[in-house]
Amino acid sequence: MAADIAEQPSVYANLLEPAHVTAISEVAKVIAERKPQHVVFTARGTSDHAALYGTYLAEIRLNLAAGLASPSAITVFGARPDLSHALVVGVSQSGGSPDLTEVLRVARESGALTLAVTNNPSSTLAQTAELSVDVAAGHERAVAATKTYTAELLALLMLIEGIRAGGQVPVAELSELPKLAEKTLARKTATELAQRYRFAARVVTTGRGYSYPSAREAALKLMETSYLPALAFSGADLLHGPLAMTDPDVPVLAFVGSGLGGKAMAPVLDRLTEQRADVVRIGPQGTLPIPKIDERLAPLLEILPLQQLALALALARGEDPDAPRGLKKVTATM
Amino acid sequence: MAADIAEQPSVYANLLEPAHVTAISEVAKVIAERKPQHVVFTARGTSDHAALYGTYLAEIRLNLAAGLASPSAITVFGARPDLSHALVVGVSQSGGSPDLTEVLRVARESGALTLAVTNNPSSTLAQTAELSVDVAAGHERAVAATKTYTAELLALLMLIEGIRAGGQVPVAELSELPKLAEKTLARKTATELAQRYRFAARVVTTGRGYSYPSAREAALKLMETSYLPALAFSGADLLHGPLAMTDPDVPVLAFVGSGLGGKAMAPVLDRLTEQRADVVRIGPQGTLPIPKIDERLAPLLEILPLQQLALALALARGEDPDAPRGLKKVTATM
Repeated sequence: MAADIAEQPSVYANLLEPAHVTAISEVAKVIAERKPQHVVFTARGTSDHAALYGTYLAEIRLNLAAGLASPSAITVFGARPDLSHALVVGVSQSGGSPDLTEVLRVARESGALTLAVTNNPSSTLAQTAELSVDVAAGHERAVAATKTYTAELLALLMLIEGIRAGGQVPVAELSELPKLAEKTLARKTATELAQRYRFAARVVTTGRGYSYPSAREAALKLMETSYLPALAFSGADLLHGPLAMTDPDVPVLAFVGSGLGGKAMAPVLDRLTEQRADVVRIGPQGTLPIPKIDERLAPLLEILPLQQLALALALARGEDPDAPRGLKKVTATM
Repeated sequence: MAADIAEQPSVYANLLEPAHVTAISEVAKVIAERKPQHVVFTARGTSDHAALYGTYLAEIRLNLAAGLASPSAITVFGARPDLSHALVVGVSQSGGSPDLTEVLRVARESGALTLAVTNNPSSTLAQTAELSVDVAAGHERAVAATKTYTAELLALLMLIEGIRAGGQVPVAELSELPKLAEKTLARKTATELAQRYRFAARVVTTGRGYSYPSAREAALKLMETSYLPALAFSGADLLHGPLAMTDPDVPVLAFVGSGLGGKAMAPVLDRLTEQRADVVRIGPQGTLPIPKIDERLAPLLEILPLQQLALALALARGEDPDAPRGLKKVTATM
């Protein structure tokens, strides 16, 4: 897991190489020309959080309605939704999940434009979809996904900015990412924080907008590797009920970026202070510091110290992060 | 809260009265005639779980793509998605949330067919939308929503079955609901179970398909009123990672109905048994028994013992379920 985490700067650099940029630009061009009316993402686990990032990008950058589909409506209940005006995107590191493949098959049959975003271009998912993007993260050794998650984020970002630009991925704004990722990983703050959380009974994670997927993924990583119960809420939803659960004994990990999403966290932080919650901020002015960057790109950096935290906390608790209990790399659900 | 919970059978009976059936049928008729191409729900907190039930209904019963929109894309980031082919549904007990109102305003401007589902027909949300459905649950005393949640479920069910039937709500299949709800509430199993969970450190809830919203809502209710950290997962997602967290010390509340969604829980239950998890089943053959009913209607019954459990557990833990810490009835988020 440590090796996978450390590779992320070079995974970014690799995906920004001309060959991958050209491949993603070509897919973006087809989508831009077909002008879908809305976007439906389908994914499971960690990839579901990458897909959630994709919905924010599609809504905000493409002005397209976007949502996450429940595969079970199709695979368990036999729904056959008319997706003829939709772009349907399956996101999966392995590309081996039978339920996502079935969703793409049904979508394609109904006339949807279908796209697989995977780390395995020869997978069933990639073969079932009309279009395919290879996130090219290389073999992931650990069961808990880290570099395939961030590679999915970057691939979706490149794709959607490419669609926005009519079929050419604008790479200039992304060129600093490998260096910034390296800088973020070089800090050891997360490892120190792991000592502080050694005996925490649970944790709350929160963020808004582009950073909400980061909160969700941070929670999943902490659960998968450290078995620390982690509850993720959008900042807005936290105010609607679960705030009652925060008190000085519950650490809150709050993603507070420098953009509109970060600003929208201000009332959430105020209420957490009233509750005397123990808040750690992840962001440019945070305890877990992230280089200042457009909030749209921040998810590519802000998850890195949380992956480090999940790993360090697992080790501090005497767990083996490379062999989590009860987990498999490819999970087959229908 | 006890009074609100007890009122649910009469809330069902009231909503099934001819005046409400006619009003919902008229709304269903307009929607059926306008033939939207997809459905976008927007909601917060408890109502978000009712909206999630709505997405399953729309996908399975109307064969329409359906998803939950993130209000922040519009309200924080200024996205202006083209929703001209969509039915956009805002679900809110108070109808007073400014972010949902803003989403409906923007959607209506872009040509969407807009609908408010609220317990307050004179609310801003209801006035902003072109169409409005009154869930008619009466004044809810407790901060934690119970009868407004199930009233939203029934209203959405009536509406979507009404659209399916071309504009006339088919009430025959619903007529037994008040009696079945009464029967479900009369059982005291949940109150006994509260003693067993008095010292539980956390709980996992799970379900698939129509019962996944029940798992989400059960978790929220336990968090809001008993401050018991409750992690909700769809059965499929539980297998993809968080299963590692279940062990004999973590009670699992599993919704296992008699239909396809319940059958799809079989592999999840098998894996939980392997992990030696402490599983309580909610369903026809469950420890928390629910009358046997079409799985589509089960969410209207299966949440009732969980509301009772949340209330009883709060009392057992010396908390005041009528005045949860840090919660307000109407939460204004943007």
